[in-house]
Amino acid sequence: MTFNGAHFLGIDGLRPDEITALLDLAERYVALNRSASKHSDALAGMTQINMFFEASTRTQASFELAGKRMGADVMNMSMASSSLKKGETLIDTALTLNAMHPDLLVVRHPLSGAVDLLAQKVNCAVINAGDGRHEHPTQALLDALTIRRAKGRLHRLVVAICGDIAHSRVARSNILLLNRMESRVRLVGPPTLMPAGAADWGCEIHDDMRAGLEDADVVMMLRLQKERMDGGFIPSEREYFDRYGLDAEKLACAKPDAIVMHPGPMNRGVEIDGMIADDINRSVIQEQVEMGVAVRMAVMDRLAATLRDARQRERLRSSVDG
Amino acid sequence: MTFNGAHFLGIDGLRPDEITALLDLAERYVALNRSASKHSDALAGMTQINMFFEASTRTQASFELAGKRMGADVMNMSMASSSLKKGETLIDTALTLNAMHPDLLVVRHPLSGAVDLLAQKVNCAVINAGDGRHEHPTQALLDALTIRRAKGRLHRLVVAICGDIAHSRVARSNILLLNRMESRVRLVGPPTLMPAGAADWGCEIHDDMRAGLEDADVVMMLRLQKERMDGGFIPSEREYFDRYGLDAEKLACAKPDAIVMHPGPMNRGVEIDGMIADDINRSVIQEQVEMGVAVRMAVMDRLAATLRDARQRERLRSSVDG
Amino acid sequence: MTFNGAHFLGIDGLRPDEITALLDLAERYVALNRSASKHSDALAGMTQINMFFEASTRTQASFELAGKRMGADVMNMSMASSSLKKGETLIDTALTLNAMHPDLLVVRHPLSGAVDLLAQKVNCAVINAGDGRHEHPTQALLDALTIRRAKGRLHRLVVAICGDIAHSRVARSNILLLNRMESRVRLVGPPTLMPAGAADWGCEIHDDMRAGLEDADVVMMLRLQKERMDGGFIPSEREYFDRYGLDAEKLACAKPDAIVMHPGPMNRGVEIDGMIADDINRSVIQEQVEMGVAVRMAVMDRLAATLRDARQRERLRSSVDG
Repeated sequence: MTFNGAHFLGIDGLRPDEITALLDLAERYVALNRSASKHSDALAGMTQINMFFEASTRTQASFELAGKRMGADVMNMSMASSSLKKGETLIDTALTLNAMHPDLLVVRHPLSGAVDLLAQKVNCAVINAGDGRHEHPTQALLDALTIRRAKGRLHRLVVAICGDIAHSRVARSNILLLNRMESRVRLVGPPTLMPAGAADWGCEIHDDMRAGLEDADVVMMLRLQKERMDGGFIPSEREYFDRYGLDAEKLACAKPDAIVMHPGPMNRGVEIDGMIADDINRSVIQEQVEMGVAVRMAVMDRLAATLRDARQRERLRSSVDG
Repeated sequence: MTFNGAHFLGIDGLRPDEITALLDLAERYVALNRSASKHSDALAGMTQINMFFEASTRTQASFELAGKRMGADVMNMSMASSSLKKGETLIDTALTLNAMHPDLLVVRHPLSGAVDLLAQKVNCAVINAGDGRHEHPTQALLDALTIRRAKGRLHRLVVAICGDIAHSRVARSNILLLNRMESRVRLVGPPTLMPAGAADWGCEIHDDMRAGLEDADVVMMLRLQKERMDGGFIPSEREYFDRYGLDAEKLACAKPDAIVMHPGPMNRGVEIDGMIADDINRSVIQEQVEMGVAVRMAVMDRLAATLRDARQRERLRSSVDG
Repeated sequence: MTFNGAHFLGIDGLRPDEITALLDLAERYVALNRSASKHSDALAGMTQINMFFEASTRTQASFELAGKRMGADVMNMSMASSSLKKGETLIDTALTLNAMHPDLLVVRHPLSGAVDLLAQKVNCAVINAGDGRHEHPTQALLDALTIRRAKGRLHRLVVAICGDIAHSRVARSNILLLNRMESRVRLVGPPTLMPAGAADWGCEIHDDMRAGLEDADVVMMLRLQKERMDGGFIPSEREYFDRYGLDAEKLACAKPDAIVMHPGPMNRGVEIDGMIADDINRSVIQEQVEMGVAVRMAVMDRLAATLRDARQRERLRSSVDG
């Protein structure tokens, strides 16, 4: 589960120095992506397969571009229209792809734990691109990089994560990372959108947004995941915005230089006022997207290096044995 | 809006010498595409994103092949199944992709003007791959290249554009280009399929097809866009073919060496007789497709060169300032 | 129709030495795919278009990876969502793509013979990736390679092909290949799933599975193609498994070292017991997938070489004539 292993499945298990090293490497890819020729050979001769069992325009695009810019052969598998429809199991699908010798398998799945399970069955590097309500570790890394660039550090910050915490793997991975880096996380939202175990996560919990935002360095809004709410209480959008939507008046409770984040796609006028989202002095929402490509390049770069080392060791061992 | 700018949004604003230069450059790509090794490095290190908000097999394929053959990292975004479904706005989607640092953004959208709007929001080169009833400039270029190859020139020709003018951005971009190159365009079709402002476009208008085709050098048939007709009069296919479908008898009104064009996909037996479409002495329909890849390569080559120049100037300015 | 021609349309017409040469070449690609850098330049500068008129996750993925690893520019056309919906004919679609100068066209189509028809209309190399109930030649090649690796030969083997023979192009191509290589094929299945002409195929036919498996070297299970059964008798899954599903007890009728194959995707518990499918001492199902990429690379390698030779000859002829 840690990064030094073969996979990148979650923030859980990463050490602070590993996180810092990944962010430092990502900075190099930020520079590459801003340069005239956005191409490296870090993944040349490697095969990357993106298996998205749940549609995601931006995350898949981010991984796809990351891999292509690093010279990988990239293949997208739209798993919704796949053999799964013909009755094949998740594991059989994974074993089938594994037999094609990918080096990197990027997986999104609607069920928590599905990516971990899959990683045990294959012999390539698996990257969790979001599994159920569990983890979305590259999102937490890109958020961390964005924060570090804006604030100059990741420790001793107050980060308010606001909105639909219950359905959010983004929140969970961010909490893990920010706690590890010694920042304080506050969870802000209506009790109905707060997960059952939140009290054990080591975060302050607020249902009053103004109190939750007080003196915050970072205000991280979450998407209202209407598509994942099943049967529970769904507030009206107007009512939700009044109490938990980020507008200028509520943002004024945070520090004067607080930054505003959102993982996208945004529901303007529901969880965030469009004016705030577009305010280039406060909002780093576009930069989050930019950092997303860079951190995914960094993660794949490190996994590729680990793979190469492992194969080199194996070759040496074979030649000694032989 | 002109080609010397950062984008390629329409024929409107292009000068005749710019059109000629693009067609000359496209000829070089025709030769490349016919050669054994169809590869250049004109877009190496660049990222091309195709955003099609409206499905189009042939246009998207043409841009995709063009970019790949020039060494770009090409990504297709099928926007129908994208975040737009999750309530994201067009502009937010564009800004998100823009943050991933594409160099070229190829956009098709069902609304006229949407591509121009989007171009104002991003800092990469935008290519209009068709917006509503407005423009489809690479189609006009490929038609021009096809005509020039068949007739040896683009001026002093009589070009009859026939059929569903009202719903056709192809017609509009072709009229703009052909008028600019000093050819005469005739619009031929039933009054119900003639746009309201057609009288101001500087074209002869005919509802009798035989009169419209008289002495034409080029007969350009349009697709009957049934999927875009909303509530208006829809003729029966049989009746339409009788009056406006291109058959040998009507084609005999044109010059003996007149060429026959169609942007595809064709409705055989509706707007064109299958025999005419397949007559290699008259029909240049397959060549239009071939020219399509070449002109798209030329347009992207020029935009890439413009981008490189602009970045070079920016670097020089930074180093002088710094 | 033979491999020395321009296309790869079926096993029918291939000579034994041609089959052997393809499998030998595929072995080289097996080694490449298992190496650290999975890349060759065999298709550099070439364009491969995958036209799948019928969805197929694994076959399309296999061809896509094969082409990308050989350096081709690969484009997938999802023909279900294509111009065909706008009323274009198969041939017009093919001619349109042909005009874009692909070198390799990989085609799957639900109608038998459609790929042969298409191959007559284009001037690039066409590969049949499965047409109706007719042929699926790369599947037969990958099965042959898997068998040869496990058994050391392709002749004098007893191969039992079991299940839904009637709807299976996999069975048909395998029978052609195995007969040509002098192995004996037995067809095992209920009479309702046996094709009308099976008696003329030179195979033993069994409706008792235990008798059919007796002393077999290879047990090749077929997928129960429920989606292709139209109106005929459909057995209950439970009843089908009892009589024709491969379990340990029925497998015991075959030779002790018999291997178990399945083209996938599997219906576990319908045509095959999950325990058997996962038994690494008997099942070569994952290896079949691996061999699939390799044989497709071999087929495309040979077609590309044929194309290059033909173009070289053409150039020489032109220069002599000129």
